[in-house]
Amino acid sequence: MNFHATILTLYPEMFPGPLGCSLAGRALKKKMWSLETQQIRNFALGPHRSVDDTPSGGGVGMVMKADILARAIDASPAEYPRFLMSPRGWSFDQSLARTIAGFSGATFVCGHFEGIDERIVEARNLIEISVGDYILSGGEIAALVILDAVVRLLPGVMGNAESGYNESFETGLLECPHYTRPHVFEGRSIPRVLISGNHDAVITWRRQQAESMTKVRRPDLWAAYKKRKY
Amino acid sequence: MNFHATILTLYPEMFPGPLGCSLAGRALKKKMWSLETQQIRNFALGPHRSVDDTPSGGGVGMVMKADILARAIDASPAEYPRFLMSPRGWSFDQSLARTIAGFSGATFVCGHFEGIDERIVEARNLIEISVGDYILSGGEIAALVILDAVVRLLPGVMGNAESGYNESFETGLLECPHYTRPHVFEGRSIPRVLISGNHDAVITWRRQQAESMTKVRRPDLWAAYKKRKY
Repeated sequence: MNFHATILTLYPEMFPGPLGCSLAGRALKKKMWSLETQQIRNFALGPHRSVDDTPSGGGVGMVMKADILARAIDASPAEYPRFLMSPRGWSFDQSLARTIAGFSGATFVCGHFEGIDERIVEARNLIEISVGDYILSGGEIAALVILDAVVRLLPGVMGNAESGYNESFETGLLECPHYTRPHVFEGRSIPRVLISGNHDAVITWRRQQAESMTKVRRPDLWAAYKKRKY
Repeated sequence: MNFHATILTLYPEMFPGPLGCSLAGRALKKKMWSLETQQIRNFALGPHRSVDDTPSGGGVGMVMKADILARAIDASPAEYPRFLMSPRGWSFDQSLARTIAGFSGATFVCGHFEGIDERIVEARNLIEISVGDYILSGGEIAALVILDAVVRLLPGVMGNAESGYNESFETGLLECPHYTRPHVFEGRSIPRVLISGNHDAVITWRRQQAESMTKVRRPDLWAAYKKRKY
């Protein structure tokens, strides 16, 4: 049973999009995961198949209707957790990516422009998640982010070549700097310790670099790391 | 002079991808912004056009070479800021989206799988930015996130229909809940205040909802909001 993703969206043509290339695309072709899109508009009634209406209480913008979303959600697989892409949601991070990668699938509800009727969130227990503190034009690119982060963690997807780096967040620290040949680039040398052949010194240097970078750039991560360590 | 985005990538076929649809896609067709991709591999030499090499100091994975990236970067427009998509970077947020939307363009360097040689970051003054605390398979989807957030802020891109909602982060608070017809959905009514016709009461209710949701879900944003307000 491989990971099955269902996307509810007004823009099914956005998928698989970038997930059809590179690591996720190769895994998709090898059927290590599967992807299904549902056009929300297909669940709208009436000649115009309108999916939204004006907000109760006034204001500009439109709100996606609960009844249409309910039909779309009820037609999606019942056995997987359902996520609503929302800037108000709980923060998506590497630990949540690991959690989702442990499920056998997930459904992603993508709003667009407007808000969505709050009652559908409650009535269908949608889990609201946010990929960051910024506003996207819709939930689709957020769903691409989450799927990319999740798919690379699925069993067999990453080979050695892909899995060695990007340890950021897994250790609670940002990554140390990396270097490769040439030894001198525009007058800048590779740090001597890395070409010393002293494996222990390399490990120590890398941890020190990761720690000092985290301390400067992400005091929030640094505080959490220190708390866990001591 | 409209906003010009340049993407340096090993996967130019990922672009415009989702940015070719919906709000960003319409703006692209109307030439409110433009997009150019550069295949990094075209700047590699040798019969294999290899772009990476083994990491100095050992370890699995590969590191993108500074000299190849230097040639790719030097062939990109010199007049725009250059960003490196990196989980170690400074956090991308709505305020940074506004800043970038104020430039006349930007260049996005996308690494893939492996790290990139640190010396290119220093030698070309790349600004490292991160879209969130998770690991993506490459920088491409991060660049899509940033461009989507930036393009919707460009002059003329959003109409009234799109601009009314998604006030999250602009006020420093998460958004209040939204509702639309029908008045009763599966036994759940729209909150009475929203259909009271009392405009002041609606404004107060929305602010209270936004405040209490922020307090519960995002104590970090709430602390910053209180500090600013009082």
